[in-house]
Amino acid sequence: LFPDQIKKFIEIFSKLPSIGPRQATRLAFYFISIGKNNLEEISNAVENLKNIQICSNCFFIHSNQDNLCNICSDKNRRKDLVMIVEKETDLISVERTKKFNGRDLVLGEMAKGGILDSVQKLRIGQLKNFIQKTCPEPAKGTHGAAEEIIIATNLTTYGDLNALVIRKELSDFSKKFSRLGRGIPTGGEIEFADEETLEQAIERRS
Amino acid sequence: LFPDQIKKFIEIFSKLPSIGPRQATRLAFYFISIGKNNLEEISNAVENLKNIQICSNCFFIHSNQDNLCNICSDKNRRKDLVMIVEKETDLISVERTKKFNGRDLVLGEMAKGGILDSVQKLRIGQLKNFIQKTCPEPAKGTHGAAEEIIIATNLTTYGDLNALVIRKELSDFSKKFSRLGRGIPTGGEIEFADEETLEQAIERRS
Repeated sequence: LFPDQIKKFIEIFSKLPSIGPRQATRLAFYFISIGKNNLEEISNAVENLKNIQICSNCFFIHSNQDNLCNICSDKNRRKDLVMIVEKETDLISVERTKKFNGRDLVLGEMAKGGILDSVQKLRIGQLKNFIQKTCPEPAKGTHGAAEEIIIATNLTTYGDLNALVIRKELSDFSKKFSRLGRGIPTGGEIEFADEETLEQAIERRS
Repeated sequence: LFPDQIKKFIEIFSKLPSIGPRQATRLAFYFISIGKNNLEEISNAVENLKNIQICSNCFFIHSNQDNLCNICSDKNRRKDLVMIVEKETDLISVERTKKFNGRDLVLGEMAKGGILDSVQKLRIGQLKNFIQKTCPEPAKGTHGAAEEIIIATNLTTYGDLNALVIRKELSDFSKKFSRLGRGIPTGGEIEFADEETLEQAIERRS
């Protein structure tokens, strides 16, 4: 009953993250209903993403001529302060705060077992190279070390475990390691905070 | 921080039905991560939908050379038995049962107020034309009438109201009007049926 074009569309879109066959079918009929010009605008928006590059340094996305993203090519940002995030969207949230003036490493989402896959090992290797190249040699060591690495994995049990794994991997490459602060979200009511959050908020009172 | 291509993608995809800005952002990064060839396959799948036609008779989709869909061009299907559905996906569900051998009208989703918009009025007008052309003249009337029109809107309060509106619109054009059967779904347990469904199931016992 379905023309081939729709079958193909549904087959492809059903496999996209958080789109199932039902939503893919609905999208197909929506796309058909909006007319050829609007449809072309949408397919162009997809196709134009192929011009996006990945930064050879921090693995964040960019569309610059050289191999570096806007953050890595910004000379005003500290090189010896690094934030490691799992997802690009995490980095974007951090950048929106304008409170971080270091550089980043986009690691990719880690498996729940706290194991680094081959891509992630490569990226951590790249960070080690970068630190060796750009940071001054520490008192004790044979290679340079960053002042601080903030390991910004989620503040969940799995995130904590993953942070430990990353820290172990990089232990020689930074003088200090940190995690994002824990506590009650701004605007949050104490009555509704869960026990663990409240416990952390008391310990980290300021 | 976002390159223009990503901004544009998120802007466009955020507006699609049941995709918000967060899912659009996630999709953008997913598309970037899959490589140029896979990305092209996806944009082609979208673009190829422009070859889909709408049947000039029942407004279902097709990719045939002439103006008619597979159902309307099937000579073995009854012309005097019509099912009116709101959505293409409703029609597809009906066709999958292989229990319906008439023709259809895809009306488009009706507003909750039970008001037909201009497109829907046009489509009902087209059905009237078709019935006049293809159905034998009834005993009493000045124009042809179908044997039966099944008004397959949802079996909800709004769906029932919409069915009444459609029926009023077509009252001269069919000898009989019907709705889909109500009752306990196959596999359903009586204990868990809501009161209204059970009531309907008792009334319509067979």
